[in-house]
Parts: sequence; structure tokens; C-alpha cells
Amino acid sequence: MGETEEVKLLGVWFSPYAIRPKIALRLKSVDYDYVEEDLFGSKSELLLKSNPVHKKVPVLIHNNKPILESLNIVEYIDETWNASDPSILPSHPHDRAQARFWSAFVDDKWFPALKAAAITKSEEAKEKGMKEVEGGLLQLEEAFVSISKGNPFFGGEAIGFMDICLGSFVGILKAREKLKGEKLLDESKIPFLCKWANEFLSDDTVKNVVPEIDKVVEFLGELEVRAQSAVSKT
Amino acid sequence: MGETEEVKLLGVWFSPYAIRPKIALRLKSVDYDYVEEDLFGSKSELLLKSNPVHKKVPVLIHNNKPILESLNIVEYIDETWNASDPSILPSHPHDRAQARFWSAFVDDKWFPALKAAAITKSEEAKEKGMKEVEGGLLQLEEAFVSISKGNPFFGGEAIGFMDICLGSFVGILKAREKLKGEKLLDESKIPFLCKWANEFLSDDTVKNVVPEIDKVVEFLGELEVRAQSAVSKT
Repeated sequence: MGETEEVKLLGVWFSPYAIRPKIALRLKSVDYDYVEEDLFGSKSELLLKSNPVHKKVPVLIHNNKPILESLNIVEYIDETWNASDPSILPSHPHDRAQARFWSAFVDDKWFPALKAAAITKSEEAKEKGMKEVEGGLLQLEEAFVSISKGNPFFGGEAIGFMDICLGSFVGILKAREKLKGEKLLDESKIPFLCKWANEFLSDDTVKNVVPEIDKVVEFLGELEVRAQSAVSKT
Repeated sequence: MGETEEVKLLGVWFSPYAIRPKIALRLKSVDYDYVEEDLFGSKSELLLKSNPVHKKVPVLIHNNKPILESLNIVEYIDETWNASDPSILPSHPHDRAQARFWSAFVDDKWFPALKAAAITKSEEAKEKGMKEVEGGLLQLEEAFVSISKGNPFFGGEAIGFMDICLGSFVGILKAREKLKGEKLLDESKIPFLCKWANEFLSDDTVKNVVPEIDKVVEFLGELEVRAQSAVSKT
């Protein structure tokens, strides 16, 4: 890292996707400037200029070059500060492929199902969606047992790529449990993932990066009020 | 590569996703057994066992270990046969991040829009969808100019990651043009991508891997007959 190294992260505190680069940068002990975007207001000039295609956070700006998409940013951080331990992706190609496969499962299948189930108005669709979400957690439990091989994390003894990916959603799961009594992290069904989730949240790298559950609960409540008020206006 | 090296690819000839590992394996001069899955019949035991989560091709099986998802397989091939030239992903982290970003754009946004526009029955939705597809091609044209820096490919002088990703759809675009007169590869709008598409198809690595346009035309016609006959049965 030269003296002229400039690292800037655009995020919003609540976004699971924005949490990911934060954890990765902390793992690699990289100093950076954090810029909080306005969640409900207009997007900053810098965000629109850096990510004209999707106009979304997170964006990492490294020496004036933007890097986009949360897991892509995590890979970039891993490759750029590759001399700094720990390595975020595993070293063996097959383990790397597994980490990327399950991360894609979380982002393309599991979380979209949770999101769809959370916002649908139809009780039937909600029930069907939540079954899919629970089924996905059972598959992830099985993957965890196979990949972690008795270690606390998907990444082994330390947090790795897949921990960052799935772990970024743990706060939301815990907050929804508190807010709605929705028990997705159910010890009777997915004991290993439940233990993993607690290990993850209490890990030194993660502790001050992931927002407090109560703050997320409050925010989810606020989101619901906004949604209801939007509906009542139509 | 030891004597016991076993490489097997499960695919279907028509699938753009299955074309990707074929090109990557050829770039790396890796010998492999190819197993063609039955497109309309039941899935093979080997496929169901290797990919129980998505039950989809392509699957690469390397020394009995399955690797899943087309671009994930391409990265695996690049990392596993890393001593064999050429390198598929660029070497600099920022260039790698760009290649991964634009590949995700193609797979998560551009092609799904084309697919949705192709199957919708509503003329209005089709028109709106095709506008999105054309807009995406303009963005990809701009990305190509910026990334290729005057070279014939996204990967520079040789085919790389993003060439494989977008190139796997060129056959379908050309076939749809022949079948429906739908001119997506329009030289007046995206001259650089049109030139790139022809360079791609005539590249030695690609030539015998991508199916012939006429065969794709015939197949797309057959798919439409099947779809119509399914509708008339309901």
C-alpha cells in the first residue's frame, strides 16, 4: 500500500450487501473512508457517477476506480490486499468453487425467496415462500456441515467468503424473529447454522460492523409504517 | 495433470451455459468426456446426483468432484489449469472485477430481459422488454470499447471471461435474426459489438464448439411448435 492509497466505501448502514465489504476490509486491516448514502433521500452524485448501471450501494472506490457488487468487491479486496492475512476465499480451486456456488445460492435463490415472502400480500404465497426459505436453510445447514468439517465457520477456523455472504443476513433474521416471532434460525431444525450465526455475530471482526439487532428491529418497523402509509395514499 | 485425471462435462448442445465450459476447456487444451443430457426426456442419474440443488447443466466433474454453475466452472478451469495459457480472467484485480461485474450484468439482467420478452404473450410487455434488451446492448457496447482498448476481445488479444459469457449468446441472437428478422446485432447502433460477435464466432477456439446457426434456427422453431402444442392442449 503506497502513501497515495485512497479507499472509500459508499454504503447504507442497514444494507446486508454494504456490510460485506466492511467485514472484508476489516479482515484485511485496510483503512478506508466510509460515506453513508441517504436511504430515503436522493442518491449522491458520487454514487450515480460510480455506478451508473445499477445506481446501488455498495461501491468501493480504490484510487478513483469504482468496484461494484458486494461479493465482487469482497473478491477484489481479497485479491488486492492478498499479502494481508487472512485469505477470504479458500486456496484450493474446488473449495473456491463451492464457496462461490453457495454464495450464488444465497443471493440468487434463498434471499430473493425471503424478500418475496416478506412483501407479498397473499397469505398463500407467503406460506409457500416461507417453506422455500426454510428448505433453503436446510440445504445451507447440510452445506455448512460438509464444508466447515467441524470448524466454526464455512471458512474453517476464521471467517471466509461464504460466512460474509450468509452472515450479512443474520441481523435481519434475528430482527424479524424479535419483531414478528418468525423463527427461521430454529435450533431444532438447523442446529449447526444457529451455532454458526452466534459465532459469526460475536466474532471480533464482525461485532462492530453488523448493526445492533434492536436498531434493525426499529428500522424494519419504520419500513412497514412507510409501506402502509404508501398503500393508504393510493 | 496426473495419469488418473478424469474430466467429464454434462451439457446439452443448445445451452449457452453449457457452451461456456466447453470453450474454457478448449482454451486450456484439456481433454474431457462429454455427456449430452436428454433435453426433453428425464434427467440422468449422474446429473441429479451431481447437482441435487438445481438439477441443471452444465456440470463439470473433475476427479469425481462436481463443480456447478457455468461461470463458476469457467473460473474453476482457469484456476485449476493455471499453468496452461491463456489465462481466462485478466490478471489485475480491477480488470477481474470489471469482467465479473459485466458477466453478472449479462446473466442477471440482460439475458433474463431477453428471455422474458421472448416468451411473453403481451405485445406491450414484449416491446418494453426488447427496449430494455437493446438498452443493455448499448451499455455493453460502451463497456466493450472501454475494456477492450482497441483489441478484438473483451479479454484483449485473446478470448477471455467476458467474451465467453456474452459470446455464448451470440448464436441465439443470430438465429433469432434469421428466424424472426429481429435485428439485435445492429451495426448502426452497436458497431463494435457486431464486429466482436463475428470475431468471436470465427475464432479457432470457438468455431467447432458453438452450434451452427442453422441448427439453432431449426431448434428454436421446434421449441415454438412444442410451446404452441402445449397451449392448444390446455
